[in-house]
Amino acid sequence: MRMTENLHEIVVNQKNAKGLTWEEVAAAIGKSPVYAAMLCYGYGQATEQEAAALARLLDLDAATQKALTEAPHRTPVQPWPPTDPFVYRFYEVILLYGPVLKDVCHEIFGDGIMSAIDFSIDVKKVKGDEGEDRAQIILNGKWLRYKKF
Amino acid sequence: MRMTENLHEIVVNQKNAKGLTWEEVAAAIGKSPVYAAMLCYGYGQATEQEAAALARLLDLDAATQKALTEAPHRTPVQPWPPTDPFVYRFYEVILLYGPVLKDVCHEIFGDGIMSAIDFSIDVKKVKGDEGEDRAQIILNGKWLRYKKF
Amino acid sequence: MRMTENLHEIVVNQKNAKGLTWEEVAAAIGKSPVYAAMLCYGYGQATEQEAAALARLLDLDAATQKALTEAPHRTPVQPWPPTDPFVYRFYEVILLYGPVLKDVCHEIFGDGIMSAIDFSIDVKKVKGDEGEDRAQIILNGKWLRYKKF
Amino acid sequence: MRMTENLHEIVVNQKNAKGLTWEEVAAAIGKSPVYAAMLCYGYGQATEQEAAALARLLDLDAATQKALTEAPHRTPVQPWPPTDPFVYRFYEVILLYGPVLKDVCHEIFGDGIMSAIDFSIDVKKVKGDEGEDRAQIILNGKWLRYKKF
Amino acid sequence: MRMTENLHEIVVNQKNAKGLTWEEVAAAIGKSPVYAAMLCYGYGQATEQEAAALARLLDLDAATQKALTEAPHRTPVQPWPPTDPFVYRFYEVILLYGPVLKDVCHEIFGDGIMSAIDFSIDVKKVKGDEGEDRAQIILNGKWLRYKKF
Amino acid sequence: MRMTENLHEIVVNQKNAKGLTWEEVAAAIGKSPVYAAMLCYGYGQATEQEAAALARLLDLDAATQKALTEAPHRTPVQPWPPTDPFVYRFYEVILLYGPVLKDVCHEIFGDGIMSAIDFSIDVKKVKGDEGEDRAQIILNGKWLRYKKF
Amino acid sequence: MRMTENLHEIVVNQKNAKGLTWEEVAAAIGKSPVYAAMLCYGYGQATEQEAAALARLLDLDAATQKALTEAPHRTPVQPWPPTDPFVYRFYEVILLYGPVLKDVCHEIFGDGIMSAIDFSIDVKKVKGDEGEDRAQIILNGKWLRYKKF
Amino acid sequence: MRMTENLHEIVVNQKNAKGLTWEEVAAAIGKSPVYAAMLCYGYGQATEQEAAALARLLDLDAATQKALTEAPHRTPVQPWPPTDPFVYRFYEVILLYGPVLKDVCHEIFGDGIMSAIDFSIDVKKVKGDEGEDRAQIILNGKWLRYKKF
Amino acid sequence: MRMTENLHEIVVNQKNAKGLTWEEVAAAIGKSPVYAAMLCYGYGQATEQEAAALARLLDLDAATQKALTEAPHRTPVQPWPPTDPFVYRFYEVILLYGPVLKDVCHEIFGDGIMSAIDFSIDVKKVKGDEGEDRAQIILNGKWLRYKKF
Amino acid sequence: MRMTENLHEIVVNQKNAKGLTWEEVAAAIGKSPVYAAMLCYGYGQATEQEAAALARLLDLDAATQKALTEAPHRTPVQPWPPTDPFVYRFYEVILLYGPVLKDVCHEIFGDGIMSAIDFSIDVKKVKGDEGEDRAQIILNGKWLRYKKF
Repeated sequence: MRMTENLHEIVVNQKNAKGLTWEEVAAAIGKSPVYAAMLCYGYGQATEQEAAALARLLDLDAATQKALTEAPHRTPVQPWPPTDPFVYRFYEVILLYGPVLKDVCHEIFGDGIMSAIDFSIDVKKVKGDEGEDRAQIILNGKWLRYKKF
Repeated sequence: MRMTENLHEIVVNQKNAKGLTWEEVAAAIGKSPVYAAMLCYGYGQATEQEAAALARLLDLDAATQKALTEAPHRTPVQPWPPTDPFVYRFYEVILLYGPVLKDVCHEIFGDGIMSAIDFSIDVKKVKGDEGEDRAQIILNGKWLRYKKF
Repeated sequence: MRMTENLHEIVVNQKNAKGLTWEEVAAAIGKSPVYAAMLCYGYGQATEQEAAALARLLDLDAATQKALTEAPHRTPVQPWPPTDPFVYRFYEVILLYGPVLKDVCHEIFGDGIMSAIDFSIDVKKVKGDEGEDRAQIILNGKWLRYKKF
Repeated sequence: MRMTENLHEIVVNQKNAKGLTWEEVAAAIGKSPVYAAMLCYGYGQATEQEAAALARLLDLDAATQKALTEAPHRTPVQPWPPTDPFVYRFYEVILLYGPVLKDVCHEIFGDGIMSAIDFSIDVKKVKGDEGEDRAQIILNGKWLRYKKF
Repeated sequence: MRMTENLHEIVVNQKNAKGLTWEEVAAAIGKSPVYAAMLCYGYGQATEQEAAALARLLDLDAATQKALTEAPHRTPVQPWPPTDPFVYRFYEVILLYGPVLKDVCHEIFGDGIMSAIDFSIDVKKVKGDEGEDRAQIILNGKWLRYKKF
Repeated sequence: MRMTENLHEIVVNQKNAKGLTWEEVAAAIGKSPVYAAMLCYGYGQATEQEAAALARLLDLDAATQKALTEAPHRTPVQPWPPTDPFVYRFYEVILLYGPVLKDVCHEIFGDGIMSAIDFSIDVKKVKGDEGEDRAQIILNGKWLRYKKF
Repeated sequence: MRMTENLHEIVVNQKNAKGLTWEEVAAAIGKSPVYAAMLCYGYGQATEQEAAALARLLDLDAATQKALTEAPHRTPVQPWPPTDPFVYRFYEVILLYGPVLKDVCHEIFGDGIMSAIDFSIDVKKVKGDEGEDRAQIILNGKWLRYKKF
Repeated sequence: MRMTENLHEIVVNQKNAKGLTWEEVAAAIGKSPVYAAMLCYGYGQATEQEAAALARLLDLDAATQKALTEAPHRTPVQPWPPTDPFVYRFYEVILLYGPVLKDVCHEIFGDGIMSAIDFSIDVKKVKGDEGEDRAQIILNGKWLRYKKF
Repeated sequence: MRMTENLHEIVVNQKNAKGLTWEEVAAAIGKSPVYAAMLCYGYGQATEQEAAALARLLDLDAATQKALTEAPHRTPVQPWPPTDPFVYRFYEVILLYGPVLKDVCHEIFGDGIMSAIDFSIDVKKVKGDEGEDRAQIILNGKWLRYKKF
Repeated sequence: MRMTENLHEIVVNQKNAKGLTWEEVAAAIGKSPVYAAMLCYGYGQATEQEAAALARLLDLDAATQKALTEAPHRTPVQPWPPTDPFVYRFYEVILLYGPVLKDVCHEIFGDGIMSAIDFSIDVKKVKGDEGEDRAQIILNGKWLRYKKF
C-alpha cells in the first residue's frame, strides 16, 4: 500500500502553482488529459518513464516520483455521496438510469458488464442544435461476460 | 404525483411478454432505444402521441396510457448503493474519477455543470484494438454556468 | 481542484476581524450580500476583479486571492443532516413539502426542474399581519425541461 | 395519530381522476394552491369547513373527510435523501448555502430561526432577462429569537 | 459563522480549572445554571454584559469574549446517536414516546409544536415515594400553531 | 415476544372511532393520560384489570385484551430520525443540550443517569409572561448511580 | 430487467421440496454445484438447455423456465451487512485482510484486480493437521490490468 | 489495547523503503507471505522471535518491536464499504454469493461456520484455459458446529 | 436456505396460544430454556427428535416440523440498532466495555476470541446485597486462538 | 464534561509501559480487574482514593489524577459496528439472541430491564467437557421494572 496519503495534493498543487493545463501535463507523458489527471490524482500506477516525466515537469522530489510508480489504493478525494453539483449530476444519472442502461446493453451483449478496469474516458466540448455549449463524456470499456463453471 | 407506483412493472412486463426489443419500442415512438426504455421505466413524461403509440404496441389499458403522460416522481428501481455489478461499475467510475472529470471540464468550460436534464445518453457496441467487444456510453449534456447575482 | 481547503475560514475570519457586514462586502464587488457571502464561503468562482476587490477589502494574500478565482469543489461547511436549528428548518421544509412544490410546479411548467445553477437567492426582512418580524427567502431559478432524444 | 396511512393517495388520486388543478382545489377552500396541496398530501389539519369542501369537490367518503380534520403525523411521501431531481435541487441548495443564509439572516435579525410552522410558501412563474421561464419560490416565516432564562 | 470551533473547550476548561459550579457561573450572569452552561457550551449568543461577566469570572481573553457574542452555529459536542448512557436515556424516551406526547399535546393544543427556540429547561432534585433521589427535567416551550395561507 | 405487531393500530383506531379523549381512557384505568396512551400505543404491560377496563371501554376482542397483558417488544411507531416537526423539536433538544443537562445533573447527583424505566412523564398547558400558551413537559426518573465492583 | 422478483424462492423451494442436493441439480445441467446454486438463486443467465434441464428436474412452469434465461438484476437475498454468522465471517476477512491481499497480489501481478465476472468458486471439505474438518473455498478470477489511454 | 495506532504505517513504510518483497519478509520469519503481511499490517500477535526477526530485517526500534507482540485491536486500514476496486470485487462476491456458499456448505457440513480465526489464506498465480493470468485465492478455515445446550 | 421466513411467528404464536413457558418447552426436548427459545426463534437446526417433540408439544404441521431441521439463515427479529430498552442495555455494554473485556481476556488467554458458535448462554435470577432482584447472564464460549500459517 | 479526551491513552500507555497486569492494577485500588480496566479506559468516576492509588501506581500527573475523579462522558474507544472479531462476537450474540434473552427474562421477572448502571461484569477461564479452554463472561445487573403512573 502506498503510504503517501496526500500524494495527489502534492502533485496537483505543483500543477496549479506552475499554471499548467491538463493538456500540457498529458503532452509530457504522451497520454490523454483525463488519464494524466487520473495519474496526478493518484488513480493509476505510473511507468518509470511517466513518473520521470511528471517529476521533471512538476519539480517533484524523488520520494513522490517513486510513489507514483507504486500500485495505488483507490479512495475518493471528495465527500460521498457527492455534494459537489458537477459530480452529483453523474451520480443522479446512474441512480436513475442505471437499470435502463443495463437493459439496453443486455439486449446488445448478453449477461455481463462494461469493465471499469479495461476502460477509458474521453471529454469533448460540442455544440448543440441551438448553438449551446455541451459536454460530451464518452465511456469505453471492454465487455466482460459472466463465466460458467 | 403519479400514483401508479408499479407503472414500470406493467409496461416492461408487457414488453417482455411480447418479446419486443427496445429497438422496436423505440421505432414505434420515433425516439432512441435508451429514451424509449426511460419512458417505459417511468423516467419521462410521454407526449399524448408517444403514450398512444406505446399503448398500441404494448396493449396498455387507458389508465396506464394516461399515467405515462403525467410528470413522474423519479425513484430508483433498484437497491442503492447498487448491488448489481453492471450498475456498480458506473458508480465506481463516478466515485473515483468524478473530481478528475470535474477538473478537466472546468479547464475547458469554467465553473459549472453538465446538465442531467437537458441531457441524452447513447449506447454503442464497438471493437477494441484486439478485436474485443467494447461498450461505448456517450453522455451529452448542456453546459450550465453558475449565475452571478 | 482547489487545494486550499480552509479558504473560507481565512476569508470569513478576516471579514469578522474587520467587523465588516455582508452588505459592505457586497458593495465592494457590486453583487448582492448573499452572493458575496457565497464567494467568501467558497461557493463560487470569483472573477479577477472580484478577487482583487475582496483581497483589498479583507487584506488577503496573493495565494488566497488566486484561489478565489479557481473553480471550487463544493462541500458543506457544516454537519449533515443539519444540526443547527436555522438550517434544519429549511431541511424540514424540503423533506415534507418537496413533492407538494413539485406537483404545483409541474402543473405550471410541465416535467422539469428549477435549476440550482442558473439560480439566485434573496433575503428580506418583512412585517407580518401582527407586526411581527418575518424572514422572506426568495429562490429564483431557470426552469429546465427534460430533453427528449 | 391518524391511522389512515394512505390518506394522501386517496385524496390525490381523486384529484387526478377528476382532472382538477390545484388552482381549482384551492378555490374550493379559499386558500392558496400550495396550501391546498399540502392538505391533500396530509401536511395539515383541515378545519371542518375545509374538509367538507374537499369532500364535496373530490367525492371523499365520511371517514376520509373526518381524517382530514385530525392532526397529522408528518412523514415524507418520497425516498430520502431525495432521488427526484426536482426535489434534490432544493436539497442541494440547503446543503451548500444553508450556512450562508444563516450568516446573512443573523446579521439582519440576530440569533434565531425562521419558523417552519408559522410559515408559508408561494410559487410563481416569472421571466428572466433573456425571456426564459423561471420558477420563483418564496418562503416566508416568522422570525423566532432564542429565549434567555 | 463563528470560526472558534473549540470555544466550548476553552470556556468549560476554565470553569473546571477554577473549580466553579454552574450555580456560580449562573450567578455571575443572572441566569439559570442550565442557561449558563448552554452559553459556555456554545449554544447561545451572549449579550455584551454576559460575555463581559463570563470573561471576568473565567479569565477569558478578548477574542473568546467577543466570540461569545456572535450567533453560534449549533453542532453537537458528542457522538450521535448518543453513546453516553445519560444522554441515551433521553433519546430512548423520544424514540419511543414521541408520538404518545404528540397525541396528548394535540388533544390539548391542536395541530402544532412546542417551540425549541422560545424554550427553557430546568433541572431539579426531588424525592420519590420511597425516599429515593429522582431527577426532574422540566421542558417549557411556546406552543406554535401551523399557519394557514 | 408479542406477535400482534399492529396492536396499537387496533387500539388507537378504536379510541378514535369512539371519539374518546386520552383523559377519558385514563379515567377508565385510573392512570394518567400519558400512561394510558403509552399502554394503547404498546409501550407497557397492562395488568389484568387495566386490560379488562380497556377492553370494555374500547370494545376490544379477547385476543387483543390478552396481548395487552404481555411484555411488549418496544419499537417506534414512526420513522427515525423523526420527520414530524413536533417530535423533531425534542430530538433537537437532546442532540444539542444533552451534554449540558448531563453536566448540570452530575454536579447535583454525581456519576449516574436518570432512569428511563422507573420514570414518568407529565404534560401541562401553562401561560407565558405575555399570555401565550406554552407546553410544559415534566420528565421524572429515579437517579441511578454507577455500581463499583 | 427480470420482473420475477421471487424467482429464487420458487426454484429453491422446489429443490427443497423434492429433497434434491446441489450435487444432483449440478449433475442435471453439467455444471458445478456452486454454479448450479447460483443459477437457482438468480445469479446467472441460464442457457436454453440449462433452463430446460432445471425445469424438468424441478417441475418449473414455462414462465419460470423463460425467466431463468433472462439476464438477472443481481441483488442480495439477505440483509446487509450480513447478520448470518456464516456469511459474516467472509465479510470480516475482506474487511480486515482486503488490503493485505491487494498488496500481495500487486507484488505478483502489478496494478489491477481479480475479475468477479470471469470468475469461479469451488468448495471442498478437507482435513486439518489434527484431523479436524475444514472448509476450503477457492476463488479463481482472471487478472485484469488497468488500461492506459 | 495496543496504543500504537500507526504501527502498520511504520512497518510497511520500512518494508517499502528497503525495497523488500513480502516473500523476503516471509522468509525472515518462516511464515507465508500473506501471514507476514498480516503481521506487518497489524493483524496478528507476533511471537518474540517473529518480532525480533522483523525488527532486524526492517530496522524497527524497540517500542515497535514490543508493540508487535501485543494482541492487536483489529480495525480496517481502508474506507468501508471498500472504494478500491480490488477489494470491492471480493465484497461483491460475498454480497451476492454468500448465501449460495452457505447453502452448499451446509449440505456438506451441517449447521455451522467456517472459522475466520483458525483460518489461513493463500494466493497463487495460475493460467486459464486461454493462457490468461488468473488469481487464485484459497481460504481455509476450521468448520465449527453450533453447540447445543 | 430455509424459505419459511415467518417460521418463528408460527412457532412462538403456538407457544403463546398454549400458554406454555420456556421451561416447559425446554423440558420437552431435554435442553435449556434459552436453547429451546433459540430453536423456536429460528436460531438453530433442530435434530429430528427435537423437531418431532416440538411438533407434538406445539401442534406444528409437517412442513413447519421439517423446516425446523434445516440449517437456518440467521437474521434479527427486531429493528437494529435495538430500540427495545432491554436489548439496548446489552448493546450499550458491548459498545462501551467491549475493548475492556478484550484487554482483560487477552491478558488471560492471549490473542483470540470467545467463540459465538461453540457457545452457550444461561440466565438466572439472583439476589443482590440489599435483597434486590438481579438478572445474571452467563456467556460461555470456547476460546479460539488465531492460527499462524 | 471531562475535557481530557485522550485520558485513557495516557493511563493505559502507562500501564503497558510499566508491564503491569490488570490484576495488579485492581489490587492497588481494591476492585476487580474488569472494573480497574473500566476506570483506566475512562468508563467510571474514580473516588479520591482510587485516583490517588492509580496515580501512585502509574506515575500519573496531578491533572490526570484529577480528571479521573470527574464524571466521564462515555464514548467508544473503537470503531462501531465493531470491526475487531473479539468484540464483534458479542455484538452478534446480542443482534441475534437479544429477543430470546428478553423473552426468557420476562417470563422470570415481568416487564423490565437488566440495569446497565447498577451492573457488574466478571470474566473467568474455565474448562469445557473436552478439556478445552473456555471464556465465561458473567453479566449481573439489577432488575428494573417499568413504573406505572
